[in-house]
Amino acid sequence: MKGVYFLISTLAILASATFLVSASDPSPLQDFCVALNDTKSAEAVFVNGKFCKDPKLANANDFFFSGLQNPRNTQNPLGSNVTAVNVDNLLGLNTLGISLARIDFAPNGLNPPHTHPRATEILVVLEGTLYVGFVTSNGDGNRLFTKVLNKGDVFVFPIGLIHFQLNVGHVNAVAFAGLSSQNPGVITIAKAVFGSQPPINPDVLAKAFQVDDNVVDNLQKQFWYDNN
Amino acid sequence: MKGVYFLISTLAILASATFLVSASDPSPLQDFCVALNDTKSAEAVFVNGKFCKDPKLANANDFFFSGLQNPRNTQNPLGSNVTAVNVDNLLGLNTLGISLARIDFAPNGLNPPHTHPRATEILVVLEGTLYVGFVTSNGDGNRLFTKVLNKGDVFVFPIGLIHFQLNVGHVNAVAFAGLSSQNPGVITIAKAVFGSQPPINPDVLAKAFQVDDNVVDNLQKQFWYDNN
Amino acid sequence: MKGVYFLISTLAILASATFLVSASDPSPLQDFCVALNDTKSAEAVFVNGKFCKDPKLANANDFFFSGLQNPRNTQNPLGSNVTAVNVDNLLGLNTLGISLARIDFAPNGLNPPHTHPRATEILVVLEGTLYVGFVTSNGDGNRLFTKVLNKGDVFVFPIGLIHFQLNVGHVNAVAFAGLSSQNPGVITIAKAVFGSQPPINPDVLAKAFQVDDNVVDNLQKQFWYDNN
Amino acid sequence: MKGVYFLISTLAILASATFLVSASDPSPLQDFCVALNDTKSAEAVFVNGKFCKDPKLANANDFFFSGLQNPRNTQNPLGSNVTAVNVDNLLGLNTLGISLARIDFAPNGLNPPHTHPRATEILVVLEGTLYVGFVTSNGDGNRLFTKVLNKGDVFVFPIGLIHFQLNVGHVNAVAFAGLSSQNPGVITIAKAVFGSQPPINPDVLAKAFQVDDNVVDNLQKQFWYDNN
Amino acid sequence: MKGVYFLISTLAILASATFLVSASDPSPLQDFCVALNDTKSAEAVFVNGKFCKDPKLANANDFFFSGLQNPRNTQNPLGSNVTAVNVDNLLGLNTLGISLARIDFAPNGLNPPHTHPRATEILVVLEGTLYVGFVTSNGDGNRLFTKVLNKGDVFVFPIGLIHFQLNVGHVNAVAFAGLSSQNPGVITIAKAVFGSQPPINPDVLAKAFQVDDNVVDNLQKQFWYDNN
Amino acid sequence: MKGVYFLISTLAILASATFLVSASDPSPLQDFCVALNDTKSAEAVFVNGKFCKDPKLANANDFFFSGLQNPRNTQNPLGSNVTAVNVDNLLGLNTLGISLARIDFAPNGLNPPHTHPRATEILVVLEGTLYVGFVTSNGDGNRLFTKVLNKGDVFVFPIGLIHFQLNVGHVNAVAFAGLSSQNPGVITIAKAVFGSQPPINPDVLAKAFQVDDNVVDNLQKQFWYDNN
Repeated sequence: MKGVYFLISTLAILASATFLVSASDPSPLQDFCVALNDTKSAEAVFVNGKFCKDPKLANANDFFFSGLQNPRNTQNPLGSNVTAVNVDNLLGLNTLGISLARIDFAPNGLNPPHTHPRATEILVVLEGTLYVGFVTSNGDGNRLFTKVLNKGDVFVFPIGLIHFQLNVGHVNAVAFAGLSSQNPGVITIAKAVFGSQPPINPDVLAKAFQVDDNVVDNLQKQFWYDNN
Repeated sequence: MKGVYFLISTLAILASATFLVSASDPSPLQDFCVALNDTKSAEAVFVNGKFCKDPKLANANDFFFSGLQNPRNTQNPLGSNVTAVNVDNLLGLNTLGISLARIDFAPNGLNPPHTHPRATEILVVLEGTLYVGFVTSNGDGNRLFTKVLNKGDVFVFPIGLIHFQLNVGHVNAVAFAGLSSQNPGVITIAKAVFGSQPPINPDVLAKAFQVDDNVVDNLQKQFWYDNN
Repeated sequence: MKGVYFLISTLAILASATFLVSASDPSPLQDFCVALNDTKSAEAVFVNGKFCKDPKLANANDFFFSGLQNPRNTQNPLGSNVTAVNVDNLLGLNTLGISLARIDFAPNGLNPPHTHPRATEILVVLEGTLYVGFVTSNGDGNRLFTKVLNKGDVFVFPIGLIHFQLNVGHVNAVAFAGLSSQNPGVITIAKAVFGSQPPINPDVLAKAFQVDDNVVDNLQKQFWYDNN
Repeated sequence: MKGVYFLISTLAILASATFLVSASDPSPLQDFCVALNDTKSAEAVFVNGKFCKDPKLANANDFFFSGLQNPRNTQNPLGSNVTAVNVDNLLGLNTLGISLARIDFAPNGLNPPHTHPRATEILVVLEGTLYVGFVTSNGDGNRLFTKVLNKGDVFVFPIGLIHFQLNVGHVNAVAFAGLSSQNPGVITIAKAVFGSQPPINPDVLAKAFQVDDNVVDNLQKQFWYDNN
Repeated sequence: MKGVYFLISTLAILASATFLVSASDPSPLQDFCVALNDTKSAEAVFVNGKFCKDPKLANANDFFFSGLQNPRNTQNPLGSNVTAVNVDNLLGLNTLGISLARIDFAPNGLNPPHTHPRATEILVVLEGTLYVGFVTSNGDGNRLFTKVLNKGDVFVFPIGLIHFQLNVGHVNAVAFAGLSSQNPGVITIAKAVFGSQPPINPDVLAKAFQVDDNVVDNLQKQFWYDNN
Repeated sequence: MKGVYFLISTLAILASATFLVSASDPSPLQDFCVALNDTKSAEAVFVNGKFCKDPKLANANDFFFSGLQNPRNTQNPLGSNVTAVNVDNLLGLNTLGISLARIDFAPNGLNPPHTHPRATEILVVLEGTLYVGFVTSNGDGNRLFTKVLNKGDVFVFPIGLIHFQLNVGHVNAVAFAGLSSQNPGVITIAKAVFGSQPPINPDVLAKAFQVDDNVVDNLQKQFWYDNN
C-alpha cells in the first residue's frame, strides 16, 4: 500500500507539471542550463530562475530564435512595440545573464518611461531618429541625461533608472537593445502606478502627484496599453 | 626639477582630495573597509563604492551612529521624513551590504511611491498604523500587494519594485527599515518623472500618462519635495 | 474522480514534501520567489536556498509577519532572547538577501559571543543600554572594538566576525537588528565548541584553550542554552 | 596663486595619470561609475575594472557612442572585422555588465574560433547568411552545436566556450552581438596558441596537436591577424 | 494505458533519483548543500549546479574523498593524467566554490593547452620539474608568461586563460592544484577544435589556422586522448 | 611650514607606494590584476581587496611563489605551523578567488578550532594521520562531523564553520589546503575570545562560558600563540 501511495505521490510532481522551473543564477555552474518550458499547472514548484533540461538532450535549437527581421505592428496607443528575446522564449539563455530586444516605433511612437529592475540596457539605432533619456536617483538630484540618436548611434541606460525613447523622426524607427539579464523585467511607470490590479488607494496617488482626486480617478480609469 | 614636479603632482592626489572614494563590493574582501569621508573636490577620482581608510586606523566610532531615538520633523508637503543610515553617514558600512532607515509619518503622512534600485526593504512598525504596498512588474500583471500594518508588524518590499507607505492612523507613526545595500538609492516616482533637472520633453509625459500637455505643464511646474 | 486525483496528487507535493525546497540566490532572478514551506519528509530534495511557490499564487501575506511588538521571555541562563524574522518564518524573504531580529535583554542579559557566517548585522537600540563589541581576525591582531549604546544608537558587526551584546543598564533592553541575508545563520561560540553533538575530542579543546582535561570535561557536561 | 596651484595639482591627476583606473564590479554600487580615460603612464595604479570620474561631472555623452551604421573594412586574411563597443570606448559602461559589437563579414569571411573569458554572447544577423557554432567542454564530450542563420535569426554562445561564425552566403554579412560584460575579453585560439609573444615551446604544441615540429614551426612563423 | 505509462515514467523522477540536481551557487545559502548523486534517467530535471540531499541526512562521508596518495597511470599519448576531485565525486563540495586535482606526468608528459571556463588554478609541485605557462587575451597582446617549477614551487593560472604544464625533468612529476569552482570545467584546445563531435566544418579550421584542407583533414581524423 | 609638511606627507602616498591597494573582487574584470605591494604608510588609501600594478608591467614572477617543499618549525605551544600562500605574498592572486596553505604538525600537534570568514577549505593529507572535524551552526544543532584522514585523503570544511585538525599519528604530518578566496582570513576561536586586544569584559565571558570570573581571568592572562 505504501508503494501505491508513493507512486501516486510521485506522480503529482511531474504530472501536475511542477517542474517548469529551472535554476538560473548570476553565473552558470556548468556549460549551460537550458530552461525547461513553463507549463500551466497551479501546483507548480519553482526555483530562482528556471529549472534546466537534461544537458545531454540539449541541442542547437535550444540556443536559436528566429524572426527579428520583421517590423512589428505599432498601431497602438503608444506607437511602439517591444519584441523581447529572453529566457521565456529563448530557453538556452537561462543562467547566462543576457537578453535582446527589437523595438519598433511609428512616427511619434514612444517607449514610455520605465525601469528594468534587473538589467542595464545598451541600445543601437538601426533606422530613424530617437530622442532618448534617463533620470538619475534622488541622491544625484534626479538629473535628466538625454541625447538624439541617429542610425548607428549607441546609448546606455544604467540598471534600475527610469528611461524612455521617443521617435522624433518622420519615418518608422527601429532599435536593437542588449540587456544584462536573461530576465530583465519591465516596470512601465504610468501603467504600474495608475493601472495596477487592484488600483492603489487614490489618496496615495493624489498626495504623491499633488493633483486632485478626480485627476487620479480619471487616470486610474484609463486603459493602460503594455507595449512589451 | 623632475623631483619638484613629482612632489607637486603627487600633492594633487590627496590635497585636491581626490581619494574620497572607497572600494565597496557585493562582498567584503577583508574584515571591513571603512569608507573615506567624501570631500568637495571637482577633480575627484572614484571607484565602484567607496575608497577605504587604512584598516589599522579604524576604530569603534567608524561603526557607530547616534540619534535615531528622536522623532523627525514631518511638517512638509508629504508629512513624512526618512532618516537614512547608510554608507554616507556610517562609514563602516562600506562593502557590508546593509543599511537602516527611520521613517516618521504625521497623520496622513505619505512615503510616496518609489523604488530602491539596489535593495530590498524589510520594514517594522514601531508606532501607529500604516497602509503599505508594492506593485509587481509588467510580466506579472502589475499586481498590487497591500497590507495594513500595526505596531510590531513586518513587511517586505522586493528589490526594484515600486512601493509606498501611508499613515492611516490618527496619530504619528514610526517605522524602522533594513535595506539590503550600504547604498540602496531612492527614486521617488513623481519627482523623478515630473521634477527632473532639466524637465523631460512634455510630449513624452503627455503620451506616457495619456493626459493633456497643460496637465504635464502644471505637474512640471510644481515643487517636488524630497523626504529623503 | 478528477477532483480526487487532484487532491491526491497535490497532497503528494506537500505531504511527501519532496520539493519543499526553493531556489534562493544572492540576487533574485524574478520579482520575488516566495519560499515553499518546509515539511518533515525524509526523502526531501533541496536546492541552494529554498524552492518557491508559483508566483501567480503569491499574495501580500507571503510578505507579512506579525508579533514583534511584544517583549520576549528572558528568564533563561543567558537573560536574552532573539526573535529572528528570516526566510524560515517570512517566506517572501527568499532570494532577497535581508532579514530582521528583535533581541530582548533582562538586566545583565547577554547575547553571547557568536558569528553569522552569511551576514553583516546593523543593530539599533530601542530601549536600555548595551555594551557591544566585535573582534577582528588574526591578521588584524584580534582587535576588540566596543561601544556602550543607548536608545537610538546604531552599531555594525561585520560579516563573519565574533561579536556580543550585554545589557549593562538596570532595566530591560530591546534592540532591532537588520542582517544582510535571508538566512544569516548563527554560531554561538561556547555552545558550538563545548556543546557540539557529539562532543569534540577533549584533547583538541584542552590544547586549544590551554586548560586541564577536567575543565574541558566540566564544560562539555554543561547544558548550553540556545537563545536563538 | 591659488589658481596656479590648482591647475598644477589637477594636471597631476591626468598628466601623471596615475589614477586612470576606475573601479568596476559585477554590480554597480551607485547609479553609474563612468570610467576615467586610460592614459599612458608607466607609474599607473589600477583597480579591478576602472576608476570612475566624479559623478557630478558625468553627462549624456559619457553614455553615447556613434558610428555603428558603417560597414567596416574586411579586406584582411580573415575577411571579417569586429567593432567592439565596450568600456574602453564607451566609458559609461563601467560597472554595468554589458557591451556590444558589430561584426562585418566578406563572402567566406570568418570570425575564427575564439572564447570570451568573461561573457556570454547573443548574436543577431542583420544581413547575410552565417554558419555558426560552439563546442562544449570535455566533460560534455566536446559536442559541436551549429546552425545556419539568416537575417533576423538569433544565436547564443555560452560564456567561456569556443565558438565561431563563417559567412556562407554570396554577399557581405553583418551581425550585432550583445555580450554580458563591459570587458568581455577575446582569446582567438589559433593566434593565442601559435602566435603568442614569445612563442610557446614547440615541444608543447607538437605533442598537443600531434604534428611534427616543422608543422609547428611553420605555424609559429605565420602572421596572425587580429580581427578585433 | 497512457496513464499507466505516465505514472511509471513519472516515477522515474523520484524513484530512480532524477533529482540528482542540486542548487549550487556562487555562495552557499545554508551551512552546506551536499549534492545528490547523479543517475541515468532521461527525464531528468536539473538546476544550476546540483540538487542537495536533506541536510539532516548529511554526514562526514559526504565531505570525504580518498585515494590521492597513489600515482596514476601516465602511459597514454600525452604522458599525463589528471585526477579531479570536484562536485561530481566529492558531493559535499556543492555550492562551496572550490575543488582539487592531482596531476601525474611521465618524463616529457604534457598537460596540453586548455582553459577552465569557470576557475582560476593554483598549482604546487610535489615532485619533479615542470615548464608551465599561460597566454593572455588578445587585448593584452597574447603575451606568454612561463616559468620552470621545482618541488615546492607554486604558480597561478588566471580564470579563462589558455595554459599548459610540461614535465621537463628526467623522472615522473606530480603536482596538486586548487581550482576556484566546485565544477571548473576543462576545454582542451586541440581536442575541442579538431576532435569535436561532429567535426567543425574544415573550411573554418583551414582559414583559422592558415593551413591546407588536407592538414585539417588529418588533424580531424586523429584520435584525441582526454587526460582528464 | 604646514604647507611643506603637507607636501611631504602627501608625497608618501605615491612615493612610498601607498597605492598598495588594488581592487579585488569576487570576479576579475580583466585577465588579471596583480596586487601592488603593501607599504607602511599611515596615510594609506585602500580599496576593497587590493590596488593593481599596471598590467603591461606584469610578468611571470607575479604569479610565482617558492618554498613550500620545506617542513616548517612546529616547536610551539600548538605543535603546528600554517604557511599561507595568499594575496599578501603571491600578488598575482588578487581578484582570482583562491589561495593555498601548507600545514605542518608535530605529533599531537593541533591546528586549533578556527573559522575562515571568507572561504571554504579543501584539505589533502600528504604525510601522517589527522583527526579533523567541523561543527555546524545552531540551526543545524551544532552537529560535529569528524573523520580520521590518512595519506591521500581529502576533507572539506564549509565556509564560516568552526573546524580543526589534530595529528593523531606518531610522526610529523603534513597537509596542503586550497581555500576559496585570495584573502580567506582566520579567526582562531580561543585566541580571539580570550586573547583579544584589549580583553573582552570578563562578565561577558564568564556568563557565555558558564565559568567563574577567575577562570576567565586566568584564560585572559595566558599567552595565545598564533600558528598562522
